[in-house]
Parts: sequence; C-alpha cells; structure tokens
Amino acid sequence: MDIQELVRSLKTKNDSKIVMLVADGLGGLPVEPGGPTELEAAKTPNLDALAKRGTQGSMIPIKLGITPGSGPGHLGLFGYEPVKYLIGRGALEATGVGFALGPNDVAIRCNFCTLDAAGNITDRRAGRIPTEESAPLAIKLREVKIPGVEVFVEPVKEHRFVVVFRGQGLGGNVADTDPQRTGVPPLDPVPADEPSRRTAEVAGKFVAAARRLLADQPKANGLTMRGFSVKPHIPTYEEVYGVRAAAIAVYPMYKGLAQLVGMEIVGQPGSLSEEIDVLKQAWNDYDFFFVHFKYTDSRGEDGNFAEKVKMIEQFDAVVPRVMELNPTVLVVTADHSTPARLASHSWHPVPTLLVADTCRPDACQAYSETESVRGGLGQFEAVYLMPLALAHAERIGKFGA
Amino acid sequence: MDIQELVRSLKTKNDSKIVMLVADGLGGLPVEPGGPTELEAAKTPNLDALAKRGTQGSMIPIKLGITPGSGPGHLGLFGYEPVKYLIGRGALEATGVGFALGPNDVAIRCNFCTLDAAGNITDRRAGRIPTEESAPLAIKLREVKIPGVEVFVEPVKEHRFVVVFRGQGLGGNVADTDPQRTGVPPLDPVPADEPSRRTAEVAGKFVAAARRLLADQPKANGLTMRGFSVKPHIPTYEEVYGVRAAAIAVYPMYKGLAQLVGMEIVGQPGSLSEEIDVLKQAWNDYDFFFVHFKYTDSRGEDGNFAEKVKMIEQFDAVVPRVMELNPTVLVVTADHSTPARLASHSWHPVPTLLVADTCRPDACQAYSETESVRGGLGQFEAVYLMPLALAHAERIGKFGA
Repeated sequence: MDIQELVRSLKTKNDSKIVMLVADGLGGLPVEPGGPTELEAAKTPNLDALAKRGTQGSMIPIKLGITPGSGPGHLGLFGYEPVKYLIGRGALEATGVGFALGPNDVAIRCNFCTLDAAGNITDRRAGRIPTEESAPLAIKLREVKIPGVEVFVEPVKEHRFVVVFRGQGLGGNVADTDPQRTGVPPLDPVPADEPSRRTAEVAGKFVAAARRLLADQPKANGLTMRGFSVKPHIPTYEEVYGVRAAAIAVYPMYKGLAQLVGMEIVGQPGSLSEEIDVLKQAWNDYDFFFVHFKYTDSRGEDGNFAEKVKMIEQFDAVVPRVMELNPTVLVVTADHSTPARLASHSWHPVPTLLVADTCRPDACQAYSETESVRGGLGQFEAVYLMPLALAHAERIGKFGA
Repeated sequence: MDIQELVRSLKTKNDSKIVMLVADGLGGLPVEPGGPTELEAAKTPNLDALAKRGTQGSMIPIKLGITPGSGPGHLGLFGYEPVKYLIGRGALEATGVGFALGPNDVAIRCNFCTLDAAGNITDRRAGRIPTEESAPLAIKLREVKIPGVEVFVEPVKEHRFVVVFRGQGLGGNVADTDPQRTGVPPLDPVPADEPSRRTAEVAGKFVAAARRLLADQPKANGLTMRGFSVKPHIPTYEEVYGVRAAAIAVYPMYKGLAQLVGMEIVGQPGSLSEEIDVLKQAWNDYDFFFVHFKYTDSRGEDGNFAEKVKMIEQFDAVVPRVMELNPTVLVVTADHSTPARLASHSWHPVPTLLVADTCRPDACQAYSETESVRGGLGQFEAVYLMPLALAHAERIGKFGA
C-alpha cells in the first residue's frame, strides 16, 4: 500500500479549504559563490511573514537527482507516484494544447515533414515551417473522415500538431512512424498488441488521406506520427482524497494535467491577478484549489535571473489576497526548480511552505531554499505533500485504533 | 522501478569527470560528552573550505540502524540496493583476496581444522594456526586435480583460505560442512538444488584429496567449507550509468568490490599519495573515479581515536591535489562509520559532501557529522549518492516532458 492508497483509505470530509499555490520552476541557484538564489534575492515580505507562522520543508520532486518534466512534476505535487502513473507523449501533447482526453481516445504527436517525388523524407520538420503556415494545414486535416472513428486534429507549434482518434477499443501501442532519418519514407504504423491493430489501421488511413490533402504543399506534404498513447488511468481527486478540486491556470498544459486527475477547470484567467479573482469567485464551490503561476519557470528557462526575481515578487504580491480568504491550509510550492543559472528544469529540491492553524511552526524566518533545509517538514518527496496538506486540514482519519 | 533503474533509463553522456573519495569508516563518535568526533577533532582545512562551496548531507549506508559490512557498504555507495544485490560469503572472501570471479565460478570460504583418528573434529580452527604455517598448506592444496573442473586455492589468514571451482553449470547452493561443534566429523556437502549437485560432488572429491595431502599435518589435517556462492549478477557501471569507471585502491577487497560492478582497477598504488598519482595518470581515460582510503577504518577498528584523527588529516592533505584536476563533481564520503569509541563498524550516518558548479550551497561551514545534519542534501540513503553525483554532472536526462 503506497502513501496515496493509505490516505485514500483514511480520508474524511469537513468544511476545510486547501489552497496550493504553485510557482512553476521556483527553486533556483546562486549565480555566484555565496550569492542568493532567485527566491533569496527577491523581496517577498508576504511569504516571509507566512514562513514565520508556518512550517517549511525541502521537497524532492520525484527522487533525489531526478529532474522532472512538467507532467511528472505536477503528478507528484498532486500526490500521484510519477513513476507509477506515466503519461504517454501523445497524451501529454494533447493535454498541453488543452484537449480533454476521454477514455476511448488515442493521442498522437505528429510532425509535418517534406517528402520527395519518390515518397522519401527530405526534411523531418518540414523546414521548421512557421506556425502561421502550419496551423491552417493542421486544421485542414480535420476534413479527414474515417468510418467508425472520430478524428480530432489540433495545431501545436511550427511543424508539430496533435491527432486524436476516438472510438471503441483503440489500443495505444503503435510504433512511431518517424524513421529518425531522411532519404527513406515514413514507416508504416505497426501495432504491438491486438487492441492496437485497429489503431494502426486507422492511422494508416489517416496518413493516406492527409497526404492527398497536403499533396500540393511545398514543405509540409507529409507527416510522421509518434508517441501513440491512451489517456492514463488515474483515479480522481474526488475518489482519492474526497475533495472537490478546482484548477486555476492560464496555460493549457497545466489545465490539462489538472484535468487528468479530475480537477475542474474554473475561469479563463489571463494573469495571476485574474487567477486570484477566479479563486475568490469559486471559493464556495470547491474544497481544494490548485493555482498555477507560469512565469517563474519561463524566466528561469530564459536564463534570466533578474526577471525571475521580478516574477517571484509578483507572486509574493498576490499572497495577501489569498490570505483574505482565510484558507484552512495554504501550501506554497513548485513542481521543480528552474535555476536561471542552468536555464532548464533541475533536480534540486523545492522550498515548500505550509501554513495552517494546525501546523507546528519551525525556526524558519523566511521562505527560501536555505531556510527550507532546516524546516519542520524536513526533506520529503512530493507525493507526501497532499497527505500533509490534507492532514493539516484534518481530512485524514486515524490509522488503526 | 527503483532509483537505479530510473537513472539507467535516463542516463546521458558528456565530458564530465566525477571523483568519489571514500575514507573508509570515516564517521565517528565523541569519546566524552560534548566532545568532538574524530572528524571534528581533526584539522581539515581543505575539506572545510570545500564544505563552504558545496552541499552536505547525512548519508545512511543501508537503512537507519543497520551496520554494513564492507560489501554492502560499498554496493550502496556504488548505487546498488544492498538488500537486493547480495554477495555470497564465499564470493566476498574470494573478492577480498583479489580473486577475479568469473561467471562459471563457485567460491567457498574454507577453514583448516584438526581431526582425530576417528575423523572427528577436535579444533574447528586448527589451533588458530599462524598464517606462515597455513599459507603453504593452502598452496599445497593447488595440487588437487578434479576432472572437468579447474580448482583454485588462495590463502587468506590463519586457518582461513578460499577455494574456487570453475566449470560449466556449477550451482552455488550447497550447505556448509562445518558442524559448528567438535567431537563430530565435518558434514558432507549437501546440494539444495539440481545445478548444485555437481558442485557438491566436486567439493566431496576436493575434501577427500585434500585430506590425503594433509594427512601428516599435526594441526591442519582437515577442512570445512562454508558460504558456497557464485558471482552475483550485477549490472556494470557502464550499463547502468554509462560511465567508464576506474577504481583506485590499495587493498584487494575494495578492488574486488569495484570489479564486481565493472570498474577497471587502475595502477598498483601502495599509499594514498600514490593513489592520487594514479588518479592523475588515469584522468583522461575514465569518466568516474572511485578512490579508496583504508586507514580511517583501520584505526577506528583499533579503537584508536587519536590515530584515526591523524589518518583523517592525511586524507584532508591530498584533497588539493584532487582539486587541481578540476573534477566536475567531487564526492567525499564513506561506506559506513567506524567510531573508535566502538572499535567496530556502526550504523551511524556518514557525513557526505558534494562539490560541483551545479550544486546549491548550504549553510554548512565545515565538513563534519554535526554540520552534515543541516546540509542541503538532507538525510538520504547511500543508493541516492550516485544519482546525485550524476545529476550534478548533468548526466541524467529529464524524466517525462
């Protein structure tokens, strides 16, 4: 029995409200020896005041040394063992553009490519065709009809788009058709098991019809398919934790990930401030609120320390508006670190703060990487964060008599 | 999927260099209340300077409360779950005398014993015969020939020696022949499974031939056999981590353990200083270097606090020569604690220091047991040390998108 199963077996209900504020990629690194991290350089009076009241910990997103992508990073935060609940590449790409996958769907990452007269690939990315040109082509592919199957096509970016087949009994185990080199034709879709045989047939028909529609295109006259995958089977927040959960996010990827665990997407905020507006409006309708702030990660990915500091200060500035709602438990955390110094996601632990009337305050005087190391929550893996939040909301019953 | 399997699935290659300096049995205890440990009593200016730059943690060799032997201690450091990868006693004894076990080998720990005229054991350790007398007898046993099997005999110490049978299809599940008491004859070797039937036959022939060769010995005129074992099946460093790994050690046991995980033994150093010479010479040929220093453990086992302190100071003194090589990641650690106060291995955590440009410095000001408790790596089990080292060398790819 893993920790989630244990919590599931002990869950109770009450009127508590839990807010999880996620500043994506928050954790950082100093840029020079002895210097501060982004969070330590930022002026965060509101978070620091909460750090004095609350309890802090050093959270490991997956396992020590492992750098998470956004999918596993959020699944971990949501309390789902990321190594157990794997999201296929196609399913993640569909999720990323806000496509709500259903139980009869197979999602596929597709690339436009360039084919020569003999049908061999001359460019695997169709000359990195710009989105303005490729998006209309992806939408044109919605004209493809295949009997017995619904076909969805969503543009992504440049040469990338997503195809979803919806129909009974479609398996997700079909090999990639990208040969990973030029001078040869795309591979045929090959099924790896019986339920995927029909998926491969459908994919073959789709490719044939798409090539007819794209025949006169100079660059994007062919396509390859990768990462065939069905919707991962993930129990919902309601089933596991007994909470009605709302997700408040600007970007489709994070709405999609929240939807995979059964959260409801509320509002259509375009900024952090609007996200807090949505939080206030939805306050009476849910027990749990996941609020996602993207730009700490974006500026980290850009390698821009100073701008990441500013984003952290913006994040800090909305905290009083959240506290006005008087949440039973407030959690402030991140899905992973994105140090500007590395301009990428990293394996470093994430400072995590929990504030509740039931928490045992520690000696931490500020919200930071360095302080979190001596926090009362100690060092813990992300899958323990939801159990801790629920416990502090008194939503987990006693184990044994 | 355990952490090693996860790392294996995500490994990438680059030009980084990782050095793991192991001061065997480094961790200690105060001898009087309020006093320092051996490491805290030692003057270690070089390690303390690195502690200010790096990040430290309190490493648990196996599991909390478990005292490791040298085999499991090193397997853990090397990232192999010690409870999963068990090294049989015979295999460890052979490894300890530098015998490179092959896939068709069965290794056995043997004791000379004294038998009376009726064939009953009168002394299970042949009167603790000194090595000068026993080693020539062990070598004499190399005369034993058994058709279809190669026989190797290696002296160890006093009444102990190692026998290795090499041949196709020899199982390792044969019961010990030591009856654990006197007044009875040695037991017959009894196989526990089909592949071990032949091993037991071979062992029976070996014992009969050996007794003929030893018949005129006053003390060592018989033998018992224990810990029959084949070479454990352990994936190599190259397979698991994608690194070319070199082991630099003075003592055969540690060379042998490194060899079990596929490291190459380089040089024939006779001292720590010569080990660093070897490190420099081998620098361009490997990605990972395990450097083993024995005497911290030896003086701990002797119960000699002051001498262990001196050994730690010797260890500290070579650190600048290692840093001249500018390793991407330096790890300083131990396979376990050997407090002089206990004069034995112990279960106490091991202060572990990691220095890299990618590390997140912590508040630690010195390398010590006390400081390590508030280090940024937190408390972690040894199997996470290799993942951490590889992550800081940027040799582990992102998990999920």
